[in-house]
Amino acid sequence: MIIRIIGTGLLGTSLGLALGKHDIQLDDASPMTAALAQDLGAGREVTPQSPDPDLVIVATPPDVAAMTINRSLDEFPRAIVTDVASVKAIVLDEVGEGRDRYVGSHPMAGRERSGAIAADGDLFIGRPWVVVAHESSRPDAVALVKQIAMEVGAFPVEMSAQSHDSAVARVSHVPQLMSSLTATTLVSAPPLSLDLAGQGLRDVTRIANSDPKLWATIIAGNSSSVATILKEIRDRLDYLIEGVDSMAADRSYAGVAHVAKIVSDGNIGASRIPGKHGGAPVRYATVTVLVPDKPGELGRLFTETGEIGVNIEDLTLEHSPAQPVGRAALSVNPSQAQPLADGLEERGWTIASVEMEEN
Amino acid sequence: MIIRIIGTGLLGTSLGLALGKHDIQLDDASPMTAALAQDLGAGREVTPQSPDPDLVIVATPPDVAAMTINRSLDEFPRAIVTDVASVKAIVLDEVGEGRDRYVGSHPMAGRERSGAIAADGDLFIGRPWVVVAHESSRPDAVALVKQIAMEVGAFPVEMSAQSHDSAVARVSHVPQLMSSLTATTLVSAPPLSLDLAGQGLRDVTRIANSDPKLWATIIAGNSSSVATILKEIRDRLDYLIEGVDSMAADRSYAGVAHVAKIVSDGNIGASRIPGKHGGAPVRYATVTVLVPDKPGELGRLFTETGEIGVNIEDLTLEHSPAQPVGRAALSVNPSQAQPLADGLEERGWTIASVEMEEN
Repeated sequence: MIIRIIGTGLLGTSLGLALGKHDIQLDDASPMTAALAQDLGAGREVTPQSPDPDLVIVATPPDVAAMTINRSLDEFPRAIVTDVASVKAIVLDEVGEGRDRYVGSHPMAGRERSGAIAADGDLFIGRPWVVVAHESSRPDAVALVKQIAMEVGAFPVEMSAQSHDSAVARVSHVPQLMSSLTATTLVSAPPLSLDLAGQGLRDVTRIANSDPKLWATIIAGNSSSVATILKEIRDRLDYLIEGVDSMAADRSYAGVAHVAKIVSDGNIGASRIPGKHGGAPVRYATVTVLVPDKPGELGRLFTETGEIGVNIEDLTLEHSPAQPVGRAALSVNPSQAQPLADGLEERGWTIASVEMEEN
Repeated sequence: MIIRIIGTGLLGTSLGLALGKHDIQLDDASPMTAALAQDLGAGREVTPQSPDPDLVIVATPPDVAAMTINRSLDEFPRAIVTDVASVKAIVLDEVGEGRDRYVGSHPMAGRERSGAIAADGDLFIGRPWVVVAHESSRPDAVALVKQIAMEVGAFPVEMSAQSHDSAVARVSHVPQLMSSLTATTLVSAPPLSLDLAGQGLRDVTRIANSDPKLWATIIAGNSSSVATILKEIRDRLDYLIEGVDSMAADRSYAGVAHVAKIVSDGNIGASRIPGKHGGAPVRYATVTVLVPDKPGELGRLFTETGEIGVNIEDLTLEHSPAQPVGRAALSVNPSQAQPLADGLEERGWTIASVEMEEN
């Protein structure tokens, strides 16, 4: 199959690498960028002699995606056209003539990196690839885009443009803004208070380091879905503040129910996030081990964990300020927690704790 | 030194274990609990014949801490008294006669566990221990409490009750509520949308599994500091919503500045969180490796990382829904990233990416 990739940045070039068994044509507004993608083995630069493609994948910046889709539908009257923009409704709205040959895509290819140079043929392995068919999308077009998703190791998830945009608003865009909002409260924090920061704060604010320009553009493309959810949150925040204020006013526990309600609804929401392998979240046990902070110690820990025959489901490393010792929290199947702790102690490790995760 | 620990739950029993070189007296409203702590080796149960202690550590539930402190100051006129309650101002307010012999404490002993049975003499190693002296605390009392903190492996941080309470509101209580608020938006999310959840959402909501009752009590004890910060956040949220609404209204980028401002202030705030060993956050490089999901593979990865001589600063494991392969993101010193990637590839690992962390 002849596939033309327009826009050879991270996603376009990665797709070229992942789809190597096809005849890949590389096209980019910047010939240098296309040349780089070719040097990286992502395909061959397009020329005036290049035959018409069967499939066009538009991987340009989002603000020119719709224009590029329309130009491709017009230039290649028999080609199927898709794009990889991270918001779908505003793109779909602008697609015109030949709309039936267009199907939107959003490969959820992990955290933002940029440029062909960061490209990686494995980028899509195991990641969801949202396939956005619309009312007039041709079945063969939908089937082809799903096939491409599977060929690069992703798993296709079919959604409407609206469902996609409100889904990413909820699971990606709003969480980013909440992390940023939490981090803004640290700008004016006395330095000493930051010495008390623990793993919880670090987790909540980890993504608060993201690029402001990039995120402003993403939110702009999905503003109504994001606004709706932010307003839900403001209502709950008002309810929370009302409760906390009433506690502060009379030192009674009048507001306790408000706080408990928010935290408890949060339990329910968090429990809906799928665990590994798409399953429901499992109740893990966590074995926390003290790890000297030098090369090879983690290696020894994991080798010996493997020897004990225990599979680690998740892991958090916590470094202690001002101390050369770290804590590795190993999440394992509850039935394996005690055997792991015993086995590691036999091998000379200090077990800080063995506990069941609260939820 | 004779130390009496009143309240032999997790903290009290752990302190007994960590202070074993002293003569530890264990006292608890529940004789069974005190007996359990004794069986665990935390000290000896108090008897009518027990001599007066030099130091009393009150480790009862926070709601009875002040009463227990006052009783101890009265019963042992020469003893120094401290407590380990997680909020300090409301306790200090209620301390009366003998106040000069009282110094508050808050060992930041990691995530909540409960009961003597979960006790651990290493619980305090490398953790901050906030020492809350007040206007009339005797210098020898302050010195003794700092010495105890150091004996259990913690590092003392001196703060006023007010500074402590507003610090924990900022670095612990409010982040907990923000994580919960983010998770509440998932309660009504269509299941399919949750399949798009990535690592960012998981990080932001990791602590949203916490116990509602426990947190309602904690917030109740620190309500005015928490309320102040929640109102700062509400103002910024309003500013954010105003920006996003204006984008939604006219599809122009009018609100971009509002979103960029919040994300960019978040960058500044997040950058103030101390990195490991109390230093400023380092710019790490991240090497992402594909890891087959079976026992021993992580072990092999870390052993070989050790062989290459690279020290892992931090690590995130990301499991791919519906795929038996995980991604291990290894944060390392930038100078070591490429050697690590090359070394691992030589050893047959698939490197998904090598990148510099954005901030």
